[in-house]
Amino acid sequence: MKKSMGAKTLMAAVPLLIIGSYDQKGKPNLMACAWGGICCSAPPCINISLRKATYSYSNIILNKAFTVNILFGDRVKEADFYGIVSGCEYDKFEETGITPIKSDIVNAPFGLEFPMVIECKVIHTIEIGLHTEFIGEIMDVKAEEYLLDKQGNIDTGKLNPIFYTPGSREYYSMGNYLGKGFKIGKSIIPVKE
Amino acid sequence: MKKSMGAKTLMAAVPLLIIGSYDQKGKPNLMACAWGGICCSAPPCINISLRKATYSYSNIILNKAFTVNILFGDRVKEADFYGIVSGCEYDKFEETGITPIKSDIVNAPFGLEFPMVIECKVIHTIEIGLHTEFIGEIMDVKAEEYLLDKQGNIDTGKLNPIFYTPGSREYYSMGNYLGKGFKIGKSIIPVKE
Repeated sequence: MKKSMGAKTLMAAVPLLIIGSYDQKGKPNLMACAWGGICCSAPPCINISLRKATYSYSNIILNKAFTVNILFGDRVKEADFYGIVSGCEYDKFEETGITPIKSDIVNAPFGLEFPMVIECKVIHTIEIGLHTEFIGEIMDVKAEEYLLDKQGNIDTGKLNPIFYTPGSREYYSMGNYLGKGFKIGKSIIPVKE
Repeated sequence: MKKSMGAKTLMAAVPLLIIGSYDQKGKPNLMACAWGGICCSAPPCINISLRKATYSYSNIILNKAFTVNILFGDRVKEADFYGIVSGCEYDKFEETGITPIKSDIVNAPFGLEFPMVIECKVIHTIEIGLHTEFIGEIMDVKAEEYLLDKQGNIDTGKLNPIFYTPGSREYYSMGNYLGKGFKIGKSIIPVKE
């Protein structure tokens, strides 16, 4: 029996994204963002939603660019810190000992020490309500070499991304392999006569 | 050292969402969608991106409504099946033994046997490229009673959502608890003098 929980942002779990941007003086900033994901395959795009009150919002409006840094479980404290304090008060790179690197493609910084970064150029801005959604075209993805297999592809077994549970406001790691996409469901397809 | 992977949809992992919709004859359909998440807190909104070629796309254009069903790891085969075949060829509820229930709030069906459902009304449609993004206002979230704690909130420990890794096209479960949001990062905040 299902119980009504009300109109709430109660998706089970979402990926935690760390957004990199520059302010008007070129100071790099990082922000934790749980409202985001992939929203188009061609062109490849990421959507992130930010409140107008955030430092990163103004930065992205200014530069029309951002990075999405993927942090692993060993940096969950830092990731949480990026969501607690504002870039107008702290240098979040410095406070966490992360080296800001300017993207060679878009006007936004990423963290040298972070395992993966996705560099994005804003192509749509949608006013929804408390949050504004930025759709960023993915211009490049960069991954640490230790994450790659012999063919140069990302070895999923080496990924350890952080998920956020909106209901309980907690962080979780990725769990076990459940199966191959576009394959394990084929056994359900009825045999045609 | 980071290696360029190119402009690809290589986010580490994203939630797998199962979208419910009705066609013009009232036939209920389910579709797997990995391009989606939460995009606004107030009003609470979900974004999902679909290709125009899908049966669900036409259904959502028609009804301006959809449900987001959260499936757990025990139904990963069904979830994959919903992404492999089209609703124009199969009755995906029937083929997987799932009972379609009409939402009492929006004109879209959900699965009786699924643990959680989010009922959405389309408020924005954004043409991005291969995918169209629908932003749905969350009108209600319904969860099976066994998922709730004594206070009536969702017990995150009982959730077992499925994640999809776009790079390797695999499914994964949720892993271990890493910490409390807006709390564990506080230890990094410098003490002001």
